[in-house]
Amino acid sequence: MRFDTLAAFDAALVDLSAPDGAAIDAARARQDQLTKPVGSLGRLEEIAVFFAGWQATPRPVIDHARAVIFAGNHGCIVHGVSAFPASVTAAMVANFAAGGAAINALAGAAGLDLNVVALDLDRPTADFTLDAAMDQDDCLAALSAGAAAVEPGLDLLVVGEMGIGNSTAAAALCARAFGGPAADWVGPGTGVDGAGVARKIAVVDRALAFHAAAPHTPFEILRRLGGREIVAIAGAVLAARRLRIPVVLDGFISGAALAPLAALVPAITDHCIAGHISAEPGHARLLDRLGLAPLLRLDMRLGEGSGAAVAVSVIRAALSAHNGMATFAEAGVAETL
Amino acid sequence: MRFDTLAAFDAALVDLSAPDGAAIDAARARQDQLTKPVGSLGRLEEIAVFFAGWQATPRPVIDHARAVIFAGNHGCIVHGVSAFPASVTAAMVANFAAGGAAINALAGAAGLDLNVVALDLDRPTADFTLDAAMDQDDCLAALSAGAAAVEPGLDLLVVGEMGIGNSTAAAALCARAFGGPAADWVGPGTGVDGAGVARKIAVVDRALAFHAAAPHTPFEILRRLGGREIVAIAGAVLAARRLRIPVVLDGFISGAALAPLAALVPAITDHCIAGHISAEPGHARLLDRLGLAPLLRLDMRLGEGSGAAVAVSVIRAALSAHNGMATFAEAGVAETL
Repeated sequence: MRFDTLAAFDAALVDLSAPDGAAIDAARARQDQLTKPVGSLGRLEEIAVFFAGWQATPRPVIDHARAVIFAGNHGCIVHGVSAFPASVTAAMVANFAAGGAAINALAGAAGLDLNVVALDLDRPTADFTLDAAMDQDDCLAALSAGAAAVEPGLDLLVVGEMGIGNSTAAAALCARAFGGPAADWVGPGTGVDGAGVARKIAVVDRALAFHAAAPHTPFEILRRLGGREIVAIAGAVLAARRLRIPVVLDGFISGAALAPLAALVPAITDHCIAGHISAEPGHARLLDRLGLAPLLRLDMRLGEGSGAAVAVSVIRAALSAHNGMATFAEAGVAETL
Repeated sequence: MRFDTLAAFDAALVDLSAPDGAAIDAARARQDQLTKPVGSLGRLEEIAVFFAGWQATPRPVIDHARAVIFAGNHGCIVHGVSAFPASVTAAMVANFAAGGAAINALAGAAGLDLNVVALDLDRPTADFTLDAAMDQDDCLAALSAGAAAVEPGLDLLVVGEMGIGNSTAAAALCARAFGGPAADWVGPGTGVDGAGVARKIAVVDRALAFHAAAPHTPFEILRRLGGREIVAIAGAVLAARRLRIPVVLDGFISGAALAPLAALVPAITDHCIAGHISAEPGHARLLDRLGLAPLLRLDMRLGEGSGAAVAVSVIRAALSAHNGMATFAEAGVAETL
């Protein structure tokens, strides 16, 4: 899947695949025949039925699962919105390559391939308080880079990000897409203090004012206020939807990538699971607007796909129960339970 | 560890092991040197430090982890407190042995050995509205059976249970241990309706009235209102404490096993993690009284160690990050992050 033109992007938002209803029904019927009281595995049952629908089989599996981490740099950091310099983005990409980051360990624990896609780190986006973050070609290229990371045959996709300054871009995207004051969406990110949060709010307010008259379309919101790694997540999620690959979102920033899309097309998150709710204050509001209930609540705030990777182990447990348990008939306890 | 006498039980409650302070300090120092903002892995960091303390090493591991599921039958089911007949307890134990139950699949997914201990299923406890559930020898034997399931060298212990009627016994234990009306502690269990909940409340009220004048000691509360599988969990948790083995509790019933102990000795849960918060309404109140914050919230209500087993995958992720990540110095990003 490529986004060579704006029309290709707009078409991807309209032509959304749906889960397989027959597989959903069959998976639900199977759950009700497993040796447990109906519904007693709670969210695990919902997960199994969800995967059945998107994988279009009553017995979904996770044999080939991938985490893709997109990295990008942001022009808005000139305003002191991050506790870290832009060089940390590249340093962490090097750390991913060397295997030393949290996502390396967590992807390994969850049985995920890890693919890191660094997007023009030496060419930050423009300062979105003064200009659009990207021109149209740049934004389309980031969408395509995201889509290119999603190959057919994946059973599950985790999306994550690395980009110093990107919690400010994410807040701007959410505020522009869903409304509300900047303060509703801005938080400490990976670690700014109260004064830093105030600076972030001011920057988002200025960006919102600068772009107030621009078209309120998914593409224009992404292009003006996003970053390459954020836009790439949107592209990856759209490509996964085309391929009916279930997506596990990470935290505030990966969710914010979908905010401009979901504001127009709420069903865009139907193939997505929110892996966790992070410590970022705006994440609860964002998940509510995306119509997603988080799987985990571990007070994580790292990004790089870390929370989503942990959630994959819970998803694996859900599918293990779904596929591995005996039915009443198989266990010979049909009459009692 | 055996509980041949009441004195042995009382001694186990007094002589509590403590985590290793030096290992805790070293693990926390390591967390602060890993390539991530300090604290950004949230609960995962706390888990790693917790395991470091109890395993007495800065680099805790889970090489040998076990789930023990205790099963027992309850005299109180003559009052119609369960949706299922007592025969289901044995049928599910057979299902565990055959590998067809949820805990088989979930223990497999979490890398847990599974050990099922059926305790005199053909000899239910007495109806605790009219008598003590167990005599002293019976209660001591259940404590010892629990302790016997905990061998030295385990890195982690999951405790779970199976016993038709045991959510009523658990509610009685909580009400007697911590106070409050029966309605605070009674819920639908694995599936009774509103009338069933009302019957459970009435049964717990009668039990509380019958035993009101009895000594308010951990042993007497367990003996009078517990069941063998519940008492065995208490014995297992005490044995694990002696051996400094971290315990992952499952749901309302495994937590209720500790209620009589924790009411007198709050520190008894110091080596325990609440694997999840179940759908049973009293569980939130119980965890609050036990001083435990649940790791997962998946609306599960099955018992048999199922929620705790899922939590083990999150714990494994926590230790993977702790042990597998690079430090700033190792990654060469010491100056930037």
